[in-house]
Amino acid sequence: MLKSSAVPKIVDHDARRAELALAAWAVVRREGIEHASVRTVAAEAGCSPGSLRHYFPSQSDLLAAALQVVVERIDARLVAIARDPDPRVAARRVLHELLPLDAERRAENEVWLAFTARALVDPPLRRMHADVDGALRSACTKAAEAFVVADPDIEGERLHALIDGLCVHAALGGDRLPAERIRAVLDRHLESLESLDPAGQPSG
Amino acid sequence: MLKSSAVPKIVDHDARRAELALAAWAVVRREGIEHASVRTVAAEAGCSPGSLRHYFPSQSDLLAAALQVVVERIDARLVAIARDPDPRVAARRVLHELLPLDAERRAENEVWLAFTARALVDPPLRRMHADVDGALRSACTKAAEAFVVADPDIEGERLHALIDGLCVHAALGGDRLPAERIRAVLDRHLESLESLDPAGQPSG
Repeated sequence: MLKSSAVPKIVDHDARRAELALAAWAVVRREGIEHASVRTVAAEAGCSPGSLRHYFPSQSDLLAAALQVVVERIDARLVAIARDPDPRVAARRVLHELLPLDAERRAENEVWLAFTARALVDPPLRRMHADVDGALRSACTKAAEAFVVADPDIEGERLHALIDGLCVHAALGGDRLPAERIRAVLDRHLESLESLDPAGQPSG
Repeated sequence: MLKSSAVPKIVDHDARRAELALAAWAVVRREGIEHASVRTVAAEAGCSPGSLRHYFPSQSDLLAAALQVVVERIDARLVAIARDPDPRVAARRVLHELLPLDAERRAENEVWLAFTARALVDPPLRRMHADVDGALRSACTKAAEAFVVADPDIEGERLHALIDGLCVHAALGGDRLPAERIRAVLDRHLESLESLDPAGQPSG
């Protein structure tokens, strides 16, 4: 349970919001996105539903804050990977970070898909969606460039669609699409990119 | 406006449900999924929200009925294509039918994604989702087999993820991902499958 602190009001507000976003994230991680209601998140944070609504007037606000937690977590992991000297090893690791291959990343995937679903019917959320989506596409384009030099724009779009399609199918498919099958599909894709550029050397 | 008929009650119930599902589909097609509420669909069908709720107690029921309309429309188009004698031409046409390349298919895509989003947080809807998802994966696997003979199971999974990823990105990306760009990504994928099997002849 998270406790309220005694620091001044304005600082307290931001810190409390961050705590509540983490509580939302904890509920999603433990029980799945379908159980992350105002009631369960308030219980997790040890506050009343009314108090939670003071910080997050709508469920969309709460979801946006939970997504912010996810984005920061993924960012931190990608920064660590970017230091790998082999670009193909680094690219493969980046893509693994974006796929729901363990419990942690499955929970992140659920938050991302729930946010995506909400953005589909809630135009005000689309800007944040577009920002995160753009960052993911950039990461995919950069990863594709490590494997193939021709037409990185279309190859990035193709890899990004593959990754997000796998994320949707993993979230809905459950046991049908375990981590090893997701990895097998990604490996097949990266092999096929490599076969277009067997030398592994940029030619242009 | 759809009018109520004078046929006996039991027959009337099913026919009326089908009419209301078509009204839901018409609203989605004209105004987008975010405007397909009980109120707007009831207005489209010329009935009261209470009457609509009699046939579809929840919005999930209404969405499931609208998805059934979409499935029947896609089925009818796929049956017509299956008669094409060139398997690669037929496969490409099947995949085009599954992608949001015109207003009609964009509306179908919105219904499918809205249903997918609901299934993510509503386990009772997952069986219908799994059925449609399985049929789409079978169509993708059959299409992939027209281009490459090795490992059709993984290639079908890969193609299906690519298609659904493009569907999600098109629904959210709007102008960023016009039909010609979606086609370019699919063409690149099919070319890369062809390059794995340049003779175009099953070898095994």
